[in-house]
Amino acid sequence: MKTNALSALGRRTTLPPISWLMHAALTRPKLISLAAGFTDNATLPTEISRRLLNEILRDPKTGRPALQYGITAGEKNLRELTARRLRKMDWQSPSSLKNKSRTGTRDEDEIYPAGRLMITGGSQQLLYMTLEALCDESDIVLVEDPTYFVFLSILQSRGLRARGIKLERDGIDLAHLEEVLARLKQSGELRRVKALYLVSYFQNPTGVTTSFAKKAGALKILKRFARAAGHPIYLLEDAAYRELRFAGDDTPSALMAPGAADDVIYTGTYSKPYAPGARVGFGILPAGLFDVVAHIKGNHDFGTANLLQQLLARALASELYDRHVAKIQKNYARKARVMKRALAEHFPPGVEIWEAGGGLYFWARLPGKISAGPKSEVFQAALKNDVLYVPGEICYADDPSRAKPDNEMRISFGSASEADIREGIARLGAGLKRFIAAAR
Amino acid sequence: MKTNALSALGRRTTLPPISWLMHAALTRPKLISLAAGFTDNATLPTEISRRLLNEILRDPKTGRPALQYGITAGEKNLRELTARRLRKMDWQSPSSLKNKSRTGTRDEDEIYPAGRLMITGGSQQLLYMTLEALCDESDIVLVEDPTYFVFLSILQSRGLRARGIKLERDGIDLAHLEEVLARLKQSGELRRVKALYLVSYFQNPTGVTTSFAKKAGALKILKRFARAAGHPIYLLEDAAYRELRFAGDDTPSALMAPGAADDVIYTGTYSKPYAPGARVGFGILPAGLFDVVAHIKGNHDFGTANLLQQLLARALASELYDRHVAKIQKNYARKARVMKRALAEHFPPGVEIWEAGGGLYFWARLPGKISAGPKSEVFQAALKNDVLYVPGEICYADDPSRAKPDNEMRISFGSASEADIREGIARLGAGLKRFIAAAR
Repeated sequence: MKTNALSALGRRTTLPPISWLMHAALTRPKLISLAAGFTDNATLPTEISRRLLNEILRDPKTGRPALQYGITAGEKNLRELTARRLRKMDWQSPSSLKNKSRTGTRDEDEIYPAGRLMITGGSQQLLYMTLEALCDESDIVLVEDPTYFVFLSILQSRGLRARGIKLERDGIDLAHLEEVLARLKQSGELRRVKALYLVSYFQNPTGVTTSFAKKAGALKILKRFARAAGHPIYLLEDAAYRELRFAGDDTPSALMAPGAADDVIYTGTYSKPYAPGARVGFGILPAGLFDVVAHIKGNHDFGTANLLQQLLARALASELYDRHVAKIQKNYARKARVMKRALAEHFPPGVEIWEAGGGLYFWARLPGKISAGPKSEVFQAALKNDVLYVPGEICYADDPSRAKPDNEMRISFGSASEADIREGIARLGAGLKRFIAAAR
Repeated sequence: MKTNALSALGRRTTLPPISWLMHAALTRPKLISLAAGFTDNATLPTEISRRLLNEILRDPKTGRPALQYGITAGEKNLRELTARRLRKMDWQSPSSLKNKSRTGTRDEDEIYPAGRLMITGGSQQLLYMTLEALCDESDIVLVEDPTYFVFLSILQSRGLRARGIKLERDGIDLAHLEEVLARLKQSGELRRVKALYLVSYFQNPTGVTTSFAKKAGALKILKRFARAAGHPIYLLEDAAYRELRFAGDDTPSALMAPGAADDVIYTGTYSKPYAPGARVGFGILPAGLFDVVAHIKGNHDFGTANLLQQLLARALASELYDRHVAKIQKNYARKARVMKRALAEHFPPGVEIWEAGGGLYFWARLPGKISAGPKSEVFQAALKNDVLYVPGEICYADDPSRAKPDNEMRISFGSASEADIREGIARLGAGLKRFIAAAR
């Protein structure tokens, strides 16, 4: 029983929706989990990390600072290396020429300033602190429909409202974004809108990548409505999966869009491409927001563990980080191919499959009115057959303006072995065939 | 300029009071800082950490889990080792026999359950999340007068009110605690009181250690007023400096007091005794609070970096952690002796010195109306002479019921070398002699 001394936040904060999935996984030892967003165990950089930590700790000149307190916003070397890496990714991406002309003569350092780059305990912490800095209870955050469900948990816990923006195969529907903002303006609630949250690369859960044109378009719309809101409406770009790309070209970040410096918050992480157990994330924030979030970070923890920051800095400064990322990209490409083949073989034709060029997920939509939700026959049958997926339903915000679709599944190839991917998809497919046949 | 999109929390959150001290330190390269609460650089466990990380990462069986996601509340082995260590400290402390009879026949596992022990990013994060779980804006937290100034920053940022309880040489004045609570009851504000925060070992800033009798006495008083409050008033014990003990016996924690399981939150850290750069803290929370804080932790960061948790677990499981703590205790004992001798030699007799048997700080009170505050002549003269201390004034809560004393100084022997301690105290003392002579 919860204590009756709780704050409103404490009362609201509940078991995350993913908990019972994890519980199911723990209580069924033979279960094949295609639900977990974990990265692949076999490719974790144990040897690289061992070697780099040895180098850092062998020399007191580098070892002692790594074990001491540091700067709340992050260590200088890691911030600079991270800013440089972001700059390189954005300016090497195919649309860069076009964008160079768009951003005009602005210095690249202005777009990727280490001084506005913060190091955090994963990018999750940056998302949390940004919401603390911007949102009072009942404020509104616009999200993709569907979106990353832990972000929805944060909104719920903090008493914030979410409004879903329709998601298309290349990002949100800009017309719907305008429509939602116009409606909020009309109802006098525009001043409560603080941000639009986009998981812009190989989105969790759908795998969708937002095109640069849509990022720039969204920013333009937000800037237009900001006047009526009386304050900026931030474009909060979560690029967590960006480096897990195994097909196609990179897409420039929203930082490359005109006017980004004032209104774009970009968050990234080394958890996914390097190691979740050496949890280091980062973000670039507009000048008017950076200091506030840094002070909040001071209250949370005075800064992310230096030892981990130095590990990442050394990996980035050497060729080891890049080599590691290339290696895991190949690995995920192979696992995605295995899953794609298995889906083609075992899933009935009526199921719509969304395939991504990176990340950890396939997205499947069942035909007709067949539910894949947590209480559905499809889900229960899967569980009985020892295979687990994430019901798409939990990735939809509590938005009273539409019903939550419940016919979708997030299927991950991240942590399961190739054999388990084949077997898991076969089991899921067998169940689906029965339900779809029965529904006819 | 701050963005005008900020939340109330964002608007309230300001530069921490210590920032300008750090800035002063950075801009004066010859400055001797007796202000920093940093641990001693030379004793940081670079070699132990190198060895243990090698062991962890050399074997994929231990290396991969250390680099993977884990359990939000912390890894099982570290939680168990930490619970066991706390139990050992409490039951080996001299008053343990007495306490054993007090706690009656209760199992030790009930007092130190790994299941109610959470691992966090330093104990600071646990303090922050506990306040999130318990306190709404304008709620009241009772604090020692003076107390840890970063805790005051958190209260200020979150819009909470602090009420100071007089601090004596063996902990808070229990009569004053009763008086303050009675006054709050009378004004109808008792239901807003959520916790009493005690930095109970070698307190920051005064070095005071709270006796076990006072902890038990305070808990009894809180329990009595809890009835009128309508909810528990928690005793939040911050034991950050507990293991930095170099003289005298250990004191049992408040967990040993009767009825502690329901109302005591105990927080500790491995930052101070092991390494701030491998930031790992922990806490034991009552059952009605544990889950809520764990869910909040899930929203913050899903759990503290596993690699650091495994480093600490391996240090604790071997004799290396204990050996390291014994070593740094000796080191701080020596530095405290150096500072004590320097104070005796250089400080004028009118200055009252509080000496502690552990921690990182001496506390000095100037006679009469001589101010040591940030704008005082004493402080400015010190800065001009390239020596820095923490003005005691910033350690007092904004409590309208009393004026803030401004004649005190926190002087740290934590990070300065022995030579710098001698020179720094000599410079401070020379200044004080002049001001005290002038004030006569």
